[in-house]
Amino acid sequence: MKIRPSLPQGTRDFAPQTLRKRQFVLQTIRGVFERYGFQPLETPAMENLDTLLGKYGEEGDKLIFRILNNGLDNPAKHEAAMEGFRQVLEGRNSTTVTERALRYDLTIPFARFVAMNHAQLNFPFKRYQMQPVWRADRPQKGRYREFWQCDADVVGSPSLLYEAELASIYLDAFRSLGIPVSVRVNHRGLLAALAEACGGAGRLTDITVSIDKLDKVGLEKVMEELDRKEFPETATAKIRTYLGVAGDNSERLQAVEGLLGGYEAGAKGIGELRWLLDFLRRDDGTEPLEIDLTLARGLDYYTGMIFEVKALDAQMGSIGGGGRYDDLTGLFGVPGIPGVGVSFGIDRICDVMEEKGLFPASLETGSRVLFFHLGQAEARHAWTVMQQLRARDTACEIYPEAARFDKQFKYAERRHIPIVAFVGSEEIAADTVRYKDLSTGEQRTVPRTAFLDALSPS
Amino acid sequence: MKIRPSLPQGTRDFAPQTLRKRQFVLQTIRGVFERYGFQPLETPAMENLDTLLGKYGEEGDKLIFRILNNGLDNPAKHEAAMEGFRQVLEGRNSTTVTERALRYDLTIPFARFVAMNHAQLNFPFKRYQMQPVWRADRPQKGRYREFWQCDADVVGSPSLLYEAELASIYLDAFRSLGIPVSVRVNHRGLLAALAEACGGAGRLTDITVSIDKLDKVGLEKVMEELDRKEFPETATAKIRTYLGVAGDNSERLQAVEGLLGGYEAGAKGIGELRWLLDFLRRDDGTEPLEIDLTLARGLDYYTGMIFEVKALDAQMGSIGGGGRYDDLTGLFGVPGIPGVGVSFGIDRICDVMEEKGLFPASLETGSRVLFFHLGQAEARHAWTVMQQLRARDTACEIYPEAARFDKQFKYAERRHIPIVAFVGSEEIAADTVRYKDLSTGEQRTVPRTAFLDALSPS
Repeated sequence: MKIRPSLPQGTRDFAPQTLRKRQFVLQTIRGVFERYGFQPLETPAMENLDTLLGKYGEEGDKLIFRILNNGLDNPAKHEAAMEGFRQVLEGRNSTTVTERALRYDLTIPFARFVAMNHAQLNFPFKRYQMQPVWRADRPQKGRYREFWQCDADVVGSPSLLYEAELASIYLDAFRSLGIPVSVRVNHRGLLAALAEACGGAGRLTDITVSIDKLDKVGLEKVMEELDRKEFPETATAKIRTYLGVAGDNSERLQAVEGLLGGYEAGAKGIGELRWLLDFLRRDDGTEPLEIDLTLARGLDYYTGMIFEVKALDAQMGSIGGGGRYDDLTGLFGVPGIPGVGVSFGIDRICDVMEEKGLFPASLETGSRVLFFHLGQAEARHAWTVMQQLRARDTACEIYPEAARFDKQFKYAERRHIPIVAFVGSEEIAADTVRYKDLSTGEQRTVPRTAFLDALSPS
Repeated sequence: MKIRPSLPQGTRDFAPQTLRKRQFVLQTIRGVFERYGFQPLETPAMENLDTLLGKYGEEGDKLIFRILNNGLDNPAKHEAAMEGFRQVLEGRNSTTVTERALRYDLTIPFARFVAMNHAQLNFPFKRYQMQPVWRADRPQKGRYREFWQCDADVVGSPSLLYEAELASIYLDAFRSLGIPVSVRVNHRGLLAALAEACGGAGRLTDITVSIDKLDKVGLEKVMEELDRKEFPETATAKIRTYLGVAGDNSERLQAVEGLLGGYEAGAKGIGELRWLLDFLRRDDGTEPLEIDLTLARGLDYYTGMIFEVKALDAQMGSIGGGGRYDDLTGLFGVPGIPGVGVSFGIDRICDVMEEKGLFPASLETGSRVLFFHLGQAEARHAWTVMQQLRARDTACEIYPEAARFDKQFKYAERRHIPIVAFVGSEEIAADTVRYKDLSTGEQRTVPRTAFLDALSPS
């Protein structure tokens, strides 16, 4: 008795209709990246374990999928392997049994690539990368153990022009996809200044970690958490004022200037935000970005501008985020390479598009035409027409055998093939094609050349 | 001191210029698959170990990369884990420590997918799949531990029309890529008949394994191997005659009909080959396929037509292969689903194209235009022009700071950007753009709208 096959927990097959939709999203974003001069990069699924360990915090390390070394079946090496495995169990890094692990994100492999190749790379280096990553998270709705990341980064330049490019990439990509979004921006300098005002730079992480939860838990819970972290009352009052700043972009900047403009980090953040808003202001004076002072981005490595994208009118967390960092490759012994990057949340973007019905109907369709199989000789004639259609880039196929018509119709319907074509003895004699549009029910017989023209992409 | 980062043995980063070339190959083949009504499928990188083990022979099993289970660091489970690991060392399958493994090819995951979903799939099901696979082979020139496979299969129909489609896909794809090839075809029925003529059906594998080496070792070595396998002299004489059959397709078929037409499997093979040649014969009477009776395809599971593609005038093994099989999913408890499929050797195809200089020069280029940075105000004006270019799908970028011209020129050259553009105070006042074609050295100043028209894709 064979075991019923199954998929590993938290992984998915992408059947054709789902995959076409994902590819549409990825291709749309890829097109935008390319128009801004970003170039594609791909790194291997597996990295040396050393490259990954210690980069994602203690909790992250536990979620890395490790690959067992091969060749362990040699009996002479069993005792060494057992010892190596015990070290793994004890949380140590043993290359005896696991040298390699699966990619956990795209950032560290990119950093590893830049560190390995920095002498040959021509900086600034603009790359995008769209690949799956793997995490041993507990699977739950919307969280998978294999999922795609889609990142664009520029490294090797401090220029704010790249902030402008990346913000503009968000705007273009979501406009192309048809998703109305709010692209929000903040600056870690403001948060650093706030920390200084509230007890010293050392409290930056405490503040960002708490503020980062604002969306999920609300203002009062954040303030309670800050109380528990033993911020003095004068400090929490400042944070409350900061988080309460409202108005349009220029009002917000003015208010925060009053609060934090006296700190160097604060003044720098305000200046850079003003520059970016000014640079991207539309001809009609409107501003495509929204200053959101409550935006914190949990990750420690951001040091300048930070971004987050939310879909409007959708029950969904952020569908994109990023920011500037000072030092991408220092961890790999190559310091002094700053950068800025953004990431697209592909799974969530697909969910939003599905929910809002934004995918083009054409993605449902593989072949545009199904030729009915009316017998061996007729099939050969149909083949000639099909080869002409294919040469014009129109996808088509023929039913594989002279089955009952209802069976052939059913195949077309289940495959969402919109047109069925008949080449029988009459059509062969007259060099015509009879075809039926399954959506309208309309049926026509036309000369072969007219059929080819009608069915070719315009 | 940080360790110099490195890549795992046998894996590769794909830097932009290499990746663009690979993507060109994959996109070209994808386009052909789509025109024949094949639909994309993707399966996860990891499969349950049970799904993979025992499918690739004993040697194959050893080359499967296993993934260590997570959560083994719980001290209460250490002894069970040590016991489980000992079982793995002894070659047993322990889910205590490794439940999952990396995909070894695309065929078994496809079979697993079909077996899991056969009730919902609408047969015949035509899918293509382009994904990396992983094997713990000893790395060597041209052999990697992570490499891409690219397969198209139709399952659920015995119709020979699919052999015609897949052969035609080979012809179209290699024509589109510009690689002159010989697409060779044979039929396992002929080999089965030859086995019957040489001592019984049980000797089929002995014969195909030996014949499969013909290309590498030559006829005499094959005959020596058959001698060692103790085929009687009458048998080896028949095999020698079979392998020596020459002439054009119809002469070959006629000769083999004399040799093996009396066996049922032989007659079937000859009939199917005749049908296929006839179906694909061009209007001018020439035949696009070449009968190659020495073609064997080592894999046991082929049962009907078999294919192999060789690049002409290239020192390279086969760059594609495939064939018909009777039973894809029987291993997973769902019998009776026959199919036929072909595979493209992506790494070798890229090597041939590189060697013969077949990649379009345009793949070298990311951005088409680099705008020089001439100062903050000028950069903002250049941005406006750039956004107009991007809206017309022309890739462009601006140098990130007002650096010396030679530095900006060098960036353009090293990035293979063919055009540099200048928007200075004169150009801003006159609403013009000055630009230089770096390949010809020609420099022009034209109205902005003329610049946009000149640089937009036609």
